[in-house]
Amino acid sequence: MKLGGFSLNTFPKGFMSCSINAGIKDNTLDFTILYSKVRASAAAMFTKNQFCGAPVVIGKQNAADGYLQAIAVNSKNANVATGDKGLKDAQKVTEAVAKELSIDSRDVLPSSTGVIGVPLPVEKILTSIPGLKNQLTENGLEQSAKAIMTTDTYPKFRTRKIGNVTISAMAKGSGMIEPNMATMLSYILTDAAIEPAQLQKMLKNAVDVSFNSVSVDGDTSTSDTVVAMANGLAGKVDLVEFEAVLTDLCIELAKEIARDGEGATKLVEVQVTGADDHVIAKKIGKSIINSPLVKTAIFGEDPNWGRIMSTIGNSEHQVNTGAVSVSFGDVYVFKNGAPAEDKRTELEEYLKTNEVLIKISLGDGQGSSTVWGCDLSYDYVKINGEYTT
Amino acid sequence: MKLGGFSLNTFPKGFMSCSINAGIKDNTLDFTILYSKVRASAAAMFTKNQFCGAPVVIGKQNAADGYLQAIAVNSKNANVATGDKGLKDAQKVTEAVAKELSIDSRDVLPSSTGVIGVPLPVEKILTSIPGLKNQLTENGLEQSAKAIMTTDTYPKFRTRKIGNVTISAMAKGSGMIEPNMATMLSYILTDAAIEPAQLQKMLKNAVDVSFNSVSVDGDTSTSDTVVAMANGLAGKVDLVEFEAVLTDLCIELAKEIARDGEGATKLVEVQVTGADDHVIAKKIGKSIINSPLVKTAIFGEDPNWGRIMSTIGNSEHQVNTGAVSVSFGDVYVFKNGAPAEDKRTELEEYLKTNEVLIKISLGDGQGSSTVWGCDLSYDYVKINGEYTT
Repeated sequence: MKLGGFSLNTFPKGFMSCSINAGIKDNTLDFTILYSKVRASAAAMFTKNQFCGAPVVIGKQNAADGYLQAIAVNSKNANVATGDKGLKDAQKVTEAVAKELSIDSRDVLPSSTGVIGVPLPVEKILTSIPGLKNQLTENGLEQSAKAIMTTDTYPKFRTRKIGNVTISAMAKGSGMIEPNMATMLSYILTDAAIEPAQLQKMLKNAVDVSFNSVSVDGDTSTSDTVVAMANGLAGKVDLVEFEAVLTDLCIELAKEIARDGEGATKLVEVQVTGADDHVIAKKIGKSIINSPLVKTAIFGEDPNWGRIMSTIGNSEHQVNTGAVSVSFGDVYVFKNGAPAEDKRTELEEYLKTNEVLIKISLGDGQGSSTVWGCDLSYDYVKINGEYTT
Repeated sequence: MKLGGFSLNTFPKGFMSCSINAGIKDNTLDFTILYSKVRASAAAMFTKNQFCGAPVVIGKQNAADGYLQAIAVNSKNANVATGDKGLKDAQKVTEAVAKELSIDSRDVLPSSTGVIGVPLPVEKILTSIPGLKNQLTENGLEQSAKAIMTTDTYPKFRTRKIGNVTISAMAKGSGMIEPNMATMLSYILTDAAIEPAQLQKMLKNAVDVSFNSVSVDGDTSTSDTVVAMANGLAGKVDLVEFEAVLTDLCIELAKEIARDGEGATKLVEVQVTGADDHVIAKKIGKSIINSPLVKTAIFGEDPNWGRIMSTIGNSEHQVNTGAVSVSFGDVYVFKNGAPAEDKRTELEEYLKTNEVLIKISLGDGQGSSTVWGCDLSYDYVKINGEYTT
């Protein structure tokens, strides 16, 4: 387990959860309820994919008023590209969960992740829901982080304290990862008292530098959803401090997603500085993180740095090629527009690490961005060549 | 050999070539001269990569007046990201070739392909040039197509007749293939009499629907160059017929590049129809051809068609999701916005082919485009994890 340790008393007050097997595909955990004893302020961000999932459509509606009380998540089936039936299925699950919890169905956010284009086995889920209220516990959040996994190899979960206040955050995602607003799925629960508008603003800022800065394969998922719930049971919190911790938590989870990218053997961080603005820096960073030629070279620990130059050169933004410098960690390969002194041996040595840092300076602009990704290995091909069969 | 047969008399009149080993990396053919006995009309298109190769910089200058007499190509080293020395090296090779052939150095187009960021071993090339004039032959073009290969597994070469006129075309390219103006390298030689401006216009049209419609890995190369030379020795030609044959030749070579993409086991053709315009259709087609999730599913012969829906949904252009239909060959998986009747067995059967056709209808717009690519296999990872080491 790559998880940091935490103790039971670090979970936020008033949140309960349960995770079960509803038999959606196999006998592993596949259905999860996250529940707050009181209605909570809520902020949510969703995929921009036009073929977004049925649960995303309903989740957007239900989170729109800034309040939620429960999240109902299934793995093993994304309920995407499933037509009208898919929408009805998602609504049925939402209503059944609300009934079981005796809450308003408009305070339930449904979420699904898994294969696209296969009808949701909704009857299996509906027959599993009655009685779940009695299975809710206050110490099951880590199990929930495990239950929402698909091709993830380990759960992604973090908890932090700010005085009396606690934030717990979980995420899943390993493939089809290039979040555009949010990651595959992430749920952030806190007992702090925060107004919905404030929560949404902080979440947006945090997501931009975390989940929206990571890519495994350049494919934005149809199910991306990140939701924050703040139920206020621990009282007020310093908002500046809260946003800093929230951002840090999101970055940690985003990096875990890249590190656990399908087939990944190395976490890759690209720091771009000196760009005209943040957007350009991020685009160039993403293009490097997504280049299959760069990714396979890193997997092979091959010092083929010329592929980075090619990727930078393909930017749609004007690059002053004479001002560009590139280093791996502190090993410079290209300095101020010309190849650096040959450091092939040092570079080969450096590439043996399992965390590769690529630093790119484009000049003296003020725009910078850090993005994360992973290498492209045989196992990526294996996992994705055999995913549904 | 996947080449079609051809006889010696199908080569265009007045063109000669030779290919040798200059010892750039190993003992295989790595240096080629293509030569016309008379100065020829010329049209050329180059990569838009901002870190374009030194030979591209010089080639642009020398082709600008619409005339060329020779092309000098080395494989095994791209002479890219090599600073001022790279430019001087490319100029030295150009001048040495011109001197050997007793022609103006401004009528020589230099071309290099291979690893990026490694200084060109220019002395090895310069010492190999004297005496090459005597090695020029009129029947060596197929060997030249072989000499310009890098990770290609077979040469790409085609010849066509139009009455008395002959066109021969060669191309190389297997990785770093998403041409943006031209392919990695392609040379088209004809003995037709065509004015430079006319030749450039026809070449641009042909390249748009051929080389610019293919992608192996989404990475536009720093060396992309396509050059057409028309020396006029066979006299005039019907220009409409010539353009049709030229376009057809370019499409055939582009498809060969996709079929021989690094590690490829299947050629993938995506036909997009019903888009608002050609540009949108092409962008969506390219996004499918470049999706690692779609590519690995095709490699694994996995009927995971939902990944295509996700890729369409990520288009930056508005898609009427309710009007979308998708089929593999004639096996429909999604029709008018809803999943088609389950054809999993037929689809699995269809995917066993080595030429996969994906047809996407976006509605009733007039824009359409056909693009080509290949699957993503273990061998792609192997080839690119070990390329320079």
